[in-house]
Amino acid sequence: MLLTGTFIDEISHDIPHQNWGAAEWEKDFLHMKAAGIDTVILIRSGYRRFLTYPSTYLIQKHGCFTPPVDLVELYLSLADKYNMQFYFGLYDSGIYWDTGDLTHEIDDNKFVIEEVWKKYGHHPSFKGWYLSMEISRKTKGATEAFRTLGLQCKQVSGGLPTFISPWIDGKKAVMAANSSITKEDAVSLQEHETEWNEIFEGIKGAVDAVAFQDGHIDYSELEDFFRINKKLADKHGMQCWTNAETFDRDMPIKFLPIKFEKLKLKLDAARRAGYDKAITFEFSHFMSPQSAYIQAHHLYNRYLEYKSTF
Amino acid sequence: MLLTGTFIDEISHDIPHQNWGAAEWEKDFLHMKAAGIDTVILIRSGYRRFLTYPSTYLIQKHGCFTPPVDLVELYLSLADKYNMQFYFGLYDSGIYWDTGDLTHEIDDNKFVIEEVWKKYGHHPSFKGWYLSMEISRKTKGATEAFRTLGLQCKQVSGGLPTFISPWIDGKKAVMAANSSITKEDAVSLQEHETEWNEIFEGIKGAVDAVAFQDGHIDYSELEDFFRINKKLADKHGMQCWTNAETFDRDMPIKFLPIKFEKLKLKLDAARRAGYDKAITFEFSHFMSPQSAYIQAHHLYNRYLEYKSTF
Amino acid sequence: MLLTGTFIDEISHDIPHQNWGAAEWEKDFLHMKAAGIDTVILIRSGYRRFLTYPSTYLIQKHGCFTPPVDLVELYLSLADKYNMQFYFGLYDSGIYWDTGDLTHEIDDNKFVIEEVWKKYGHHPSFKGWYLSMEISRKTKGATEAFRTLGLQCKQVSGGLPTFISPWIDGKKAVMAANSSITKEDAVSLQEHETEWNEIFEGIKGAVDAVAFQDGHIDYSELEDFFRINKKLADKHGMQCWTNAETFDRDMPIKFLPIKFEKLKLKLDAARRAGYDKAITFEFSHFMSPQSAYIQAHHLYNRYLEYKSTF
Repeated sequence: MLLTGTFIDEISHDIPHQNWGAAEWEKDFLHMKAAGIDTVILIRSGYRRFLTYPSTYLIQKHGCFTPPVDLVELYLSLADKYNMQFYFGLYDSGIYWDTGDLTHEIDDNKFVIEEVWKKYGHHPSFKGWYLSMEISRKTKGATEAFRTLGLQCKQVSGGLPTFISPWIDGKKAVMAANSSITKEDAVSLQEHETEWNEIFEGIKGAVDAVAFQDGHIDYSELEDFFRINKKLADKHGMQCWTNAETFDRDMPIKFLPIKFEKLKLKLDAARRAGYDKAITFEFSHFMSPQSAYIQAHHLYNRYLEYKSTF
Repeated sequence: MLLTGTFIDEISHDIPHQNWGAAEWEKDFLHMKAAGIDTVILIRSGYRRFLTYPSTYLIQKHGCFTPPVDLVELYLSLADKYNMQFYFGLYDSGIYWDTGDLTHEIDDNKFVIEEVWKKYGHHPSFKGWYLSMEISRKTKGATEAFRTLGLQCKQVSGGLPTFISPWIDGKKAVMAANSSITKEDAVSLQEHETEWNEIFEGIKGAVDAVAFQDGHIDYSELEDFFRINKKLADKHGMQCWTNAETFDRDMPIKFLPIKFEKLKLKLDAARRAGYDKAITFEFSHFMSPQSAYIQAHHLYNRYLEYKSTF
Repeated sequence: MLLTGTFIDEISHDIPHQNWGAAEWEKDFLHMKAAGIDTVILIRSGYRRFLTYPSTYLIQKHGCFTPPVDLVELYLSLADKYNMQFYFGLYDSGIYWDTGDLTHEIDDNKFVIEEVWKKYGHHPSFKGWYLSMEISRKTKGATEAFRTLGLQCKQVSGGLPTFISPWIDGKKAVMAANSSITKEDAVSLQEHETEWNEIFEGIKGAVDAVAFQDGHIDYSELEDFFRINKKLADKHGMQCWTNAETFDRDMPIKFLPIKFEKLKLKLDAARRAGYDKAITFEFSHFMSPQSAYIQAHHLYNRYLEYKSTF
């Protein structure tokens, strides 16, 4: 199970920016290619007032800031040039994080999807959509939001695929701004299966793949949860991807690159569960040889050694 | 609005030290010059028992530690050599942070000001004083402290200018050791204006410039607060500077370099409000091409690109 | 008082991994040698399910993960090659950190000690044992655990020396995952002496050296505590080492390299108290010229300058 996709973390909730310009981004796409990555996913096209592209709609409607660079154009051009697939991540108003209410995400993204497809849909590398709302089992209204937005993405773009990346409500499911790293009330395997069976039932047809984040459970629990995820995805006709996090959730510094051994354990568990694809959050901070975190340079080397054994 | 000044963060409250020697500091002064900086401000000359210069008074009075290097002499010599202005930041006993009581700062700094002017006043680059007590609207006794110390600095040094750098009591005004990044009870524009009008009234004549820290309010609030600050400064005959923070207050890691777009938003707002000068906290950690934080190297490049457009 | 030993922090509780391979580790042993270090101490051979060597016992008994590299073999080979002494740190089940109960550490390490000596005892650089349970005055059962395990280490290995590295229950004794950096209820000098006198009495003969961690008390308290430690060690026939921490406990980022001046204050205090040896936690993250933390590169240079004055 090798990584073939990565998120691109602009705009960020909680990972400090690297302040790269176009030259650094082009170099990073080349590093990704060398590591076997053929898919890049914009994690979200905007967050609150910050945007990755100059959205007329969002600037007028919400007073969002015009970004200094059109990153969507930049990433799509690089993906065109290097023959990679680009997935567009929807806008995140921030309101859901504060209130749990997803209606704003639905309302705004109706316009964003139209606007973006008109502006960037001609790029040959525009290959899919990422429904960027990060949810877990208790998120009210998630099924309807994914269903509505997934269908609209497909309808606008001639059926391009969509995917989601929810989290498992495990013992490490704590907010980044929380100083602790674990919580008490983790979900059981049984609850996880029951609840996600219901959610998958509701989004079938609107979502083509589900890429659970792999960092919220213990390393010893990976295989059990992964087998359930794969079984549920198969049952509802979806692809089962893993979002192999390359940052370390076990450390008080939130967040630095993961220890290679932990990444290996997670990829190996996904392979044994028969997963379809592995993507990561995310290459440029946590695995790139030009990352601001030097631990990432060594993780890149360890990962290439591992890759060469297949 | 371009940066023409920077703090030098020795001694630090909450930013880990870079362990630079004289060679690295000289290189950094050259990097500053290349970025258009002509003013360096020692953020504080001592903090609790740690000192930047071997102060006979503080070592005898409080058992402060003799520093391995006389940083005040080093910085003044470099400022002399490279034709920059040096502002001396007063001593911070730490007692005010614990108790809110500013009388120790007044008492100790009476001696420090005398001692420092005698020891270093001959340096041609010694151009002013920074009253280092970081206060906001609720700090009892701040007006009297600034008045007393500001007048003394001027009297000792033949009228050299003084400045302060308070914070706006906005939603991001939380302590660094607090794991959260925002609070509920932020100040309103109206309260801000009323309260600072009163403080400015009290310090007029003793303080020549006020450089509000720009990181405690939302990006969408910048312009409104900045216009009030400028209006108040004009009314009381003070210069209005901005302290454009180059670290990111929105991230759980406290603190790494800011995203360039955020710095640009803040500098643009200061320009529109007609501010007189922009300084930053601070160049060497967060913007220097030799910073331990590699994000800073890229911020430097992004900033130079921005600067070249003027 | 110069550093002649360092811990090696694999497996880590709270310091993010650097993802070094064999080449980086060999380079680091050379950097250590250049800084005067002749002793390397594996901080623990395993932590919960993560291991530094493929322990048949721990993999079968607790489902521990087989590590991608046998680090114990790697470190011993490097220590053989570069004529350094290697101390083996015992296994840490993690149960003591959760429950305060040390019986699991005793039970598991009985097998680990046998296994390790059989597997690696032929290495000429295998020179001692580190009893890795980190305790302070209030740890129930610590005396018995140290006594039992210390005697067993010696018996198995023909009397090789053992040491411990407890912490002083000072004002900075807070857990890494806690967002604050100090606490109220610090131990007094008198309590420290009384309680540790009793513990030393109990472990005499089983433990050859005690290396108190030096980071939990204020810099102004160092000398008083160090003199008591030395007096107690002398009284019970043990060597008194200092574990000079090279990370900074005073900063909200937990943890980055220490300011050189602080390290110097701590080493100077240990020298004045007549300590026998100085080790550090730890060279590779916080002091190495190839550390992922660039502050460490400069700390290395500052330390070499200091070292050259002796």
